[in-house]
Amino acid sequence: MSSKRIIIVGAGPAGLAAAGVLARLGASVTLIDKDPDMGGHLSKWHQLFPDRSSAQILLEQLVSEVPDEVSRIMGREVIGGNVRTNQVDLKLDEGTWITGDGLLLATGFDLFDAHRKEEYGYGIYDNVYTQAEVEQMFENGRIENRSGKIPQSIAFLHCVGSRDQKVGVSYCSKVCCVTGVKQAIEMREKLPDAIIYNFYMDLRMFGQGFEELYHDAQEKYNIRFIRGRISEAAENQQGKVIIKAEDTLTARPLKLTVDMLILLCGMQPSKHTANLADTFGFTTGPDGFLKPLGPSQNTFRTRHPHVMLAGACTGPATLTEAIQAGRSASLALYEQLFNIIN
Amino acid sequence: MSSKRIIIVGAGPAGLAAAGVLARLGASVTLIDKDPDMGGHLSKWHQLFPDRSSAQILLEQLVSEVPDEVSRIMGREVIGGNVRTNQVDLKLDEGTWITGDGLLLATGFDLFDAHRKEEYGYGIYDNVYTQAEVEQMFENGRIENRSGKIPQSIAFLHCVGSRDQKVGVSYCSKVCCVTGVKQAIEMREKLPDAIIYNFYMDLRMFGQGFEELYHDAQEKYNIRFIRGRISEAAENQQGKVIIKAEDTLTARPLKLTVDMLILLCGMQPSKHTANLADTFGFTTGPDGFLKPLGPSQNTFRTRHPHVMLAGACTGPATLTEAIQAGRSASLALYEQLFNIIN
Repeated sequence: MSSKRIIIVGAGPAGLAAAGVLARLGASVTLIDKDPDMGGHLSKWHQLFPDRSSAQILLEQLVSEVPDEVSRIMGREVIGGNVRTNQVDLKLDEGTWITGDGLLLATGFDLFDAHRKEEYGYGIYDNVYTQAEVEQMFENGRIENRSGKIPQSIAFLHCVGSRDQKVGVSYCSKVCCVTGVKQAIEMREKLPDAIIYNFYMDLRMFGQGFEELYHDAQEKYNIRFIRGRISEAAENQQGKVIIKAEDTLTARPLKLTVDMLILLCGMQPSKHTANLADTFGFTTGPDGFLKPLGPSQNTFRTRHPHVMLAGACTGPATLTEAIQAGRSASLALYEQLFNIIN
Repeated sequence: MSSKRIIIVGAGPAGLAAAGVLARLGASVTLIDKDPDMGGHLSKWHQLFPDRSSAQILLEQLVSEVPDEVSRIMGREVIGGNVRTNQVDLKLDEGTWITGDGLLLATGFDLFDAHRKEEYGYGIYDNVYTQAEVEQMFENGRIENRSGKIPQSIAFLHCVGSRDQKVGVSYCSKVCCVTGVKQAIEMREKLPDAIIYNFYMDLRMFGQGFEELYHDAQEKYNIRFIRGRISEAAENQQGKVIIKAEDTLTARPLKLTVDMLILLCGMQPSKHTANLADTFGFTTGPDGFLKPLGPSQNTFRTRHPHVMLAGACTGPATLTEAIQAGRSASLALYEQLFNIIN
């Protein structure tokens, strides 16, 4: 079995899972990431849904499964290249080229830029945050606003940059709902007397353990769920956030003042994914994510038999899905390159 | 590389995907299913969500990827056996035993038994159906009720045996929402003048293309969505179904008469899964599904290193997820049995 050189772009959960599998199966693997550290978004997270397990421990496990023989090129972006019949040439941002027999793209996602929903005042008012910033608060162990005060009322707003045709995003980002519910529970544990709201459209608690978490949030943790979208936020003289919404279940307008407004931002194709799609002519869907060849059993294939896709570069994905996709796509690449004909 | 004997129980999408992978990787595979034909629930379906692709074509592709060398034992149920340190012995219902080095369980799900929600009259009234029966109507190309009449008004009821603690099911079955929306669109295409309702709690259109399908259902296909759960159904003298519900968005009670009521039933662990869990002492979760060792990257492992789980025997899953899980779990089993140490 002659060795094959496989390049994996993206060292998040999908890319790490793939690197581990392909190296163990005997390929010569190079893992490239634009960030200096491995893990992608996972490295910035505190606890995972629905079981509140540690993001750090999962990351360490994924990294530990990547053998030492895997070359790591960190802090470098792929800025150009060619995909030929049996070879891939990639140009890195510092000018060098790297060549492989196969390519696995796991370039992940960016969180929707909350500034784009100007009506919520992110970046304008002090006390409007994203779920990523809240995760860092949990990681640091301190829940306080930018003036160092402990919030007594908190509102989470679901679907920021999801299901919103005004910003050109028609799809659902799938993981924000459960993240909002998980973070609300964590807030309650840290702030037993705070009032905590979740403003939602539909609560998409579809995954294993998600619905149970939502029940707990309602019944054990006294989180207030309001079905309605916030129309706008403003700041008062005390730096509190005034939000206007409609409770669609009671059909009444609402005006609330909270100490902290947290925007649950959706997932978008990462800029890096978009650049690579342009450079290499990879197909993207109307949502901008990389589009695999087919549905169901072909969610990882491209029109190039030796180029596979995995994880959130193909669309919103849970961590488990990203890892499964990384494993499944690397198996397909292994079968392709090592001539195990399907 | 000495060959290893792997037994796969379940010839639905997850089991078929696994059989293809393991056989191509060089294992000696035996595929067992209690049904005489391969495909599980997929073989009874007409079109898949969200893209309306043919269930039959996907099934043929999955079957065609299973090499001829794979032994098939169809129409036989596993009724007993032992899992030992490096060997698995399974007893079949006709009395023979079969032995393997590794075991992959892909025993799938059963649809929730609609009779258990007596208040909806399934099995009592003529014109109450399940989504599986509707799929057969589409397959047969004839939409008519049991007296041979073409329905002019149809109501789909979501969450039958899902998110319903009265019947001991607290989880969400994840795929019924999108199935109901897909079937409503198909109904509209066949019956342009019918009135078509969807009664839902939350529309969980989380997957790629799901939300877009829901938009189309509202905007292009004129499906009426009512947020509310039907409390009961009755039959009138003309054989029509009278349903009582509350529209939770307008907070008004509703009483409607329809020609056809379609119950979107949730997913449960299959009886076969439950029996095997009992026989072998496999761990099950509070929902009755087989419980893998861990979340995230360990969704396929059991406490026996040579026994893996895949697909809907571990919880509700989409077809894509079941196929990915089959591939991912078979890779783990291959690594385990062929000593490719993690």
